[in-house]
Amino acid sequence: MRLELTPLVERLRSLAKRGDVATIREELEDIHEVDLADALERMTVEEGLEVFRKLEPVDAAFILTELTQETQRLYSEELSDEVLAYYLDILPMDDALGLRESIGEDRFEVLLNMIPQPDAQEIRRSLRYPEDSVGRVMTEGFFKVNPDQSIASVLADIRLASEDKYESVYDLYVLDEGEHLLGVFSLRRAVRARPDLTARELMNDEIVTARASDPAETVARDLARYGFRALPVVDDRGRMVGVLTGDDAQYLIGQADTVDVLKLGAVGGDADSYLSLNPLQLYRRRVVWLLGLFVAETLTGTVMRHYAQAAELNPLTFFIPLIIGAGGNTGSQATTTITRAIAVGDVKTSDLMAVLKRELPTSVMLGLTLGAIGYFRAIFWTESASLIPYVVGLSLPLVTIWATCIGGILPILAKRLRFDPAVMSAPFISTFVDATGLIIYFEVALRILGRNAFG
Amino acid sequence: MRLELTPLVERLRSLAKRGDVATIREELEDIHEVDLADALERMTVEEGLEVFRKLEPVDAAFILTELTQETQRLYSEELSDEVLAYYLDILPMDDALGLRESIGEDRFEVLLNMIPQPDAQEIRRSLRYPEDSVGRVMTEGFFKVNPDQSIASVLADIRLASEDKYESVYDLYVLDEGEHLLGVFSLRRAVRARPDLTARELMNDEIVTARASDPAETVARDLARYGFRALPVVDDRGRMVGVLTGDDAQYLIGQADTVDVLKLGAVGGDADSYLSLNPLQLYRRRVVWLLGLFVAETLTGTVMRHYAQAAELNPLTFFIPLIIGAGGNTGSQATTTITRAIAVGDVKTSDLMAVLKRELPTSVMLGLTLGAIGYFRAIFWTESASLIPYVVGLSLPLVTIWATCIGGILPILAKRLRFDPAVMSAPFISTFVDATGLIIYFEVALRILGRNAFG
Repeated sequence: MRLELTPLVERLRSLAKRGDVATIREELEDIHEVDLADALERMTVEEGLEVFRKLEPVDAAFILTELTQETQRLYSEELSDEVLAYYLDILPMDDALGLRESIGEDRFEVLLNMIPQPDAQEIRRSLRYPEDSVGRVMTEGFFKVNPDQSIASVLADIRLASEDKYESVYDLYVLDEGEHLLGVFSLRRAVRARPDLTARELMNDEIVTARASDPAETVARDLARYGFRALPVVDDRGRMVGVLTGDDAQYLIGQADTVDVLKLGAVGGDADSYLSLNPLQLYRRRVVWLLGLFVAETLTGTVMRHYAQAAELNPLTFFIPLIIGAGGNTGSQATTTITRAIAVGDVKTSDLMAVLKRELPTSVMLGLTLGAIGYFRAIFWTESASLIPYVVGLSLPLVTIWATCIGGILPILAKRLRFDPAVMSAPFISTFVDATGLIIYFEVALRILGRNAFG
Repeated sequence: MRLELTPLVERLRSLAKRGDVATIREELEDIHEVDLADALERMTVEEGLEVFRKLEPVDAAFILTELTQETQRLYSEELSDEVLAYYLDILPMDDALGLRESIGEDRFEVLLNMIPQPDAQEIRRSLRYPEDSVGRVMTEGFFKVNPDQSIASVLADIRLASEDKYESVYDLYVLDEGEHLLGVFSLRRAVRARPDLTARELMNDEIVTARASDPAETVARDLARYGFRALPVVDDRGRMVGVLTGDDAQYLIGQADTVDVLKLGAVGGDADSYLSLNPLQLYRRRVVWLLGLFVAETLTGTVMRHYAQAAELNPLTFFIPLIIGAGGNTGSQATTTITRAIAVGDVKTSDLMAVLKRELPTSVMLGLTLGAIGYFRAIFWTESASLIPYVVGLSLPLVTIWATCIGGILPILAKRLRFDPAVMSAPFISTFVDATGLIIYFEVALRILGRNAFG
């Protein structure tokens, strides 16, 4: 069911070269915007923009919302205020709001003044709710019914309503004059009901609602837990202001799960698709955590030194936890990232080279960072003439590169061999690179210190 | 929005004692079956069954489907064939099928012979699809429309159809005489359409379908990716056999994500709610992986021994990777389990004691297992008079207990201090318990070997 992206990327490149707007629009008509967005992510910004500018503007607006925040930012910088304002105008409120961070708050404010004021007001109202709250992600369009309206007149209203205005009319909400929610009934129930019944007679008045200021992830998980199709959202004064739909909830949960999984593997950042990220971005998502862990791991070395006199430990052993930890942590980061990307379908078994092309440069950057810190740390811990700082400074990059590449590749190989890639868990990779990392460390030591100076 | 379970459990206990069926049914009428199932999980089987037997049979059937597999099994053993057959009869096909493993295949087959044969046939047909395939989880009830039917007659059919037969009629499927899917349209479109149009004229014939034999998780993720509300499911001959709905997909994804997260933390088992598991079950979910990792970690010790002569390493240091690894792995398992339970809302900050009551006995069992193996491993690695096996055999349980409890508690404390609990990642806990684990190891060594025998 899922589209292969590599041929699509090729097709977009050749379409961009031919450059005929009508052909492009016609050829891409049947491609889902999610697929188009993913394909654009795999092209350079220049290539991508060349296609993007030729798309039907409405399609372009929706595709922009599907791009990663970084790509949105790069694209927005190249697009005119008029084009962006048009997008904000036609997009549903929550999608428009989702572009705010990429566009930049100041420019977003300028754009809001360019669009029809009721729409701008709606967006500004939403902005008053806390970040990551239901109010920021809810759908403002829902079908309002008067309690005294007959079902026949409700159905007539549905026939007359404009097609775009409501994302869904599967539930009809009965509101009093003060916009307070009295009850709800489904379109199906309306179709089956006697036409002369009033909405009040038909509605179910035991309604579960969410508050607009509630945290969106919690509400989404509760919606899923209880199997609701959608939840009406009320403001602090009990007035209904929107709906959180099941697929909004599903999207929020999916994103939150990805972020959580990555965090469990000590990788920062949001749920952007793996192949849309370049090595520098991957480096940034991992290095902060890694440095924190690395500093914490020097604690272990301190413990070893503390017991060193009593236990007559060779100073080489002080650094064993550091080496083991660096390999374990960078390996866990890579394996967590790739395993999740496989699970959500971002990475396939055929993407082995694409993964290596990202993990190898990432691991070199991570390795050099850790190596430099390890070198200076070792200078403080050993006598002035000792060669151990060189051993540490050289082994750390090697262990990091090895662990990261292994951590990135093993889940893909597992999947190819029809094992579950998640079996290549963080602890498994840690354990595997512990042993191999130590071999690297001792071999480097043997070469630098020589067999005699080894003690 | 979410119900507090502790008061509900108390209420169920007191209701069970009073024992009046009518009161129980009335009092529990407004409680969602998911909450009731979670409350039953926190009671003993005897207590739980006392409540369960007094529930409205239809409610009981649905609640049974929400219980963990282990509890389903224990309850089923106590329930008569007649009662279980009644459940299978009234439950939707996918829910009935979900009980098969808990009831046991043989008894399930007996029960199938007790229910109306068309229902039994439907379940047997579903069983022909591979495990974890779409065919096992799809909904068989969907609304069929004849291509030449007028919309007026379609709406009349919907009015006449029995309420229970269709989980949803938001999409109406147009099928030819051979049950091949020709197109689809929404109830909303039908309501808005001219009544004299035929289904064929109204329908959208660009349909994305899933095959019943496709893996369910992949299809569910694709459905979510493309934002479909539901996917029609066809068999190998292209006949439509069911629907995979958005909330089925959401449920599948949620379960799969939990299993994946746990696997990344080297914890086995399915997505059962944490607090419904007892220490023995927690032990079983962790010990297999742990033993694998432990054996793998002895590799590292072998590496250390290999370089021992050249580097003049103290035999005590052979076991450092084993100690560090045991602490890191058991700590990761606990922290992954608890962090996920917090994320999905199974564990709250007030559950600190409930978590400790599970993690402490679990860690003692894990520690004794690892200690015993470590002790024998050390006997092989050291000279016959050495006391090191005692050091290893005693430190391993201590390190494991310490790491597991810390790994279980820290995410809850983080949440209490309003940090993100996922920040207590597996690598973070590993690093933290590396240092503290070594202190335990060396302190045990000092006490057993004495300062002189230390070298």
